[in-house]
Amino acid sequence: MRDGSPPAGAGEYRALSRLISRIENHPGAAASIIADLWSRTGRARRVGLTGAPGVGKSTLADQLITAARDGGLTVAVIAVDPSSPFSGGAILGDRVRMVRHSGDPGVYIRSMAARAHLGGLAAATRDVAYVLEAFAFDLILVETVGVGQSELEIMRLADTVVVVTAPGFGDAVQTLKAGILEIADVLVVNKADRPGAKETVMQLREMRRLVPHHDAWDVPVVETTASTGAGVADVWEAIRRHGEHLRTSGELEARRGRRAEREVLALVEAALASRVRATVHDRGEPAELLARAKRHEADPHSTAKAILERLIPPEGR
Amino acid sequence: MRDGSPPAGAGEYRALSRLISRIENHPGAAASIIADLWSRTGRARRVGLTGAPGVGKSTLADQLITAARDGGLTVAVIAVDPSSPFSGGAILGDRVRMVRHSGDPGVYIRSMAARAHLGGLAAATRDVAYVLEAFAFDLILVETVGVGQSELEIMRLADTVVVVTAPGFGDAVQTLKAGILEIADVLVVNKADRPGAKETVMQLREMRRLVPHHDAWDVPVVETTASTGAGVADVWEAIRRHGEHLRTSGELEARRGRRAEREVLALVEAALASRVRATVHDRGEPAELLARAKRHEADPHSTAKAILERLIPPEGR
Repeated sequence: MRDGSPPAGAGEYRALSRLISRIENHPGAAASIIADLWSRTGRARRVGLTGAPGVGKSTLADQLITAARDGGLTVAVIAVDPSSPFSGGAILGDRVRMVRHSGDPGVYIRSMAARAHLGGLAAATRDVAYVLEAFAFDLILVETVGVGQSELEIMRLADTVVVVTAPGFGDAVQTLKAGILEIADVLVVNKADRPGAKETVMQLREMRRLVPHHDAWDVPVVETTASTGAGVADVWEAIRRHGEHLRTSGELEARRGRRAEREVLALVEAALASRVRATVHDRGEPAELLARAKRHEADPHSTAKAILERLIPPEGR
Repeated sequence: MRDGSPPAGAGEYRALSRLISRIENHPGAAASIIADLWSRTGRARRVGLTGAPGVGKSTLADQLITAARDGGLTVAVIAVDPSSPFSGGAILGDRVRMVRHSGDPGVYIRSMAARAHLGGLAAATRDVAYVLEAFAFDLILVETVGVGQSELEIMRLADTVVVVTAPGFGDAVQTLKAGILEIADVLVVNKADRPGAKETVMQLREMRRLVPHHDAWDVPVVETTASTGAGVADVWEAIRRHGEHLRTSGELEARRGRRAEREVLALVEAALASRVRATVHDRGEPAELLARAKRHEADPHSTAKAILERLIPPEGR
């Protein structure tokens, strides 16, 4: 399976799509699906690709898929849409370019639909990544649009994070604000044939110097013109080198360990939060405590403390 | 105190600043501070003001402070900075304009410092708003920069949310993406003397039509040129009218009730989350379960379930 041959026949792709739909539509279904296929996970390479709309991210993704296929790898793409129902259409339209790979059985592309709750989208994406690993894809490319908190959370799924900017977007600064520079392993300045590209590269290098990477990895700043393919090989090489760094430095294990810890804690906290919500809406005493706070008869801190005490009895703490 | 006269002498301002610093620096201190002054809260008008950097938000804030003072109201401003250590300087510089009110004892301006954890910033801002209410300010103006999830959360503190855009920013679309249009009560197109202003107004009106306001309030789109003061009176009037709508429709009670519920649940969930973190790092069995997940020997869902069962014994559920 790890030799670039299609990981599955058409029938297996249908099974894969069904599993993903179940995870998307029934959050409760994920636990048993993931438990069942757990032994087959953990071998894929996960690359995240993010950047503001308009920087040419989809075109670069398309080129990276081609590079991966030329290198003999099978590829699964998770294209994560932002939550707004308005922007979905335009972005999907933009992604139509990737459809040129849709005839290739070694490429599987899945768009994660906009969901009401952003935490839900990140959780679903996390589970879908494991499913794709179990279906033996060599490379999982997670693509998000924008640089908000939810995109940051989704990018943490990746072993290698590629952040794309372009000259004239003021993106370098925007990017910084959302804290994404701190998690970037490869920085790409796309549309490098445009005026201002050199300045953007210099600006990113300078910022990079001010925000050292969390492990001993010198984050490359790569120039591309994805529309012509110029520089794409350099991005692919930077991703490959970062993968090598992860393995030889022990950072891959460390990073995956941190990821597993974040996932476990997020699941425990989500389960507790939903229990809290059920408790305050269903049961007598916590519900009455909350009602008093809603009438401004008690302050939020005292109310929270009282609910907490009823939720977890002292001996349970 | 509700007559526009300074709410306090210089000594009381020092006490106020000390309380706010304690809340910022010692998250555990907030509970007793808020409980102590709770009976004095709930009477101020809370207005949120948000928009992308560069739309002229600070200039508008400055003009609104003047309008409020002319109307005989005392004003407290919470200027919330984004989390990045890099952008802080520039934004504070921009806000220096508001300093012209600093000689006025009826105006108190507080910048909330960047904090490591965004949830922490929203929580601190929430508590500071109550402290300012207790110090009897008539109007509390909460200003945030940008339109990310954290800003959305902070805007939920307000009774009335004013979202500022400007022509040529592509902001109308950016704004939509972050979901802020859904919570806007007043939309302002600033720099209305620039080309494209009419198009931005029309675009916002069209979007507004597609995303109906959650209660029966027809969201006004107001044009301003804050640098000259043109249109500021219309924004002030829109804020006043929305306040009237809130009171007469019963939506003020409803909105404050929802806010209290969100605050209580957030506090309960934060307390549970910190208990989870302490448990998995300190205790034997949950820590060992987490360690297995970190070594990829168990999947996150099964691990979370097992930790949850040890954290809350069945009889405690």
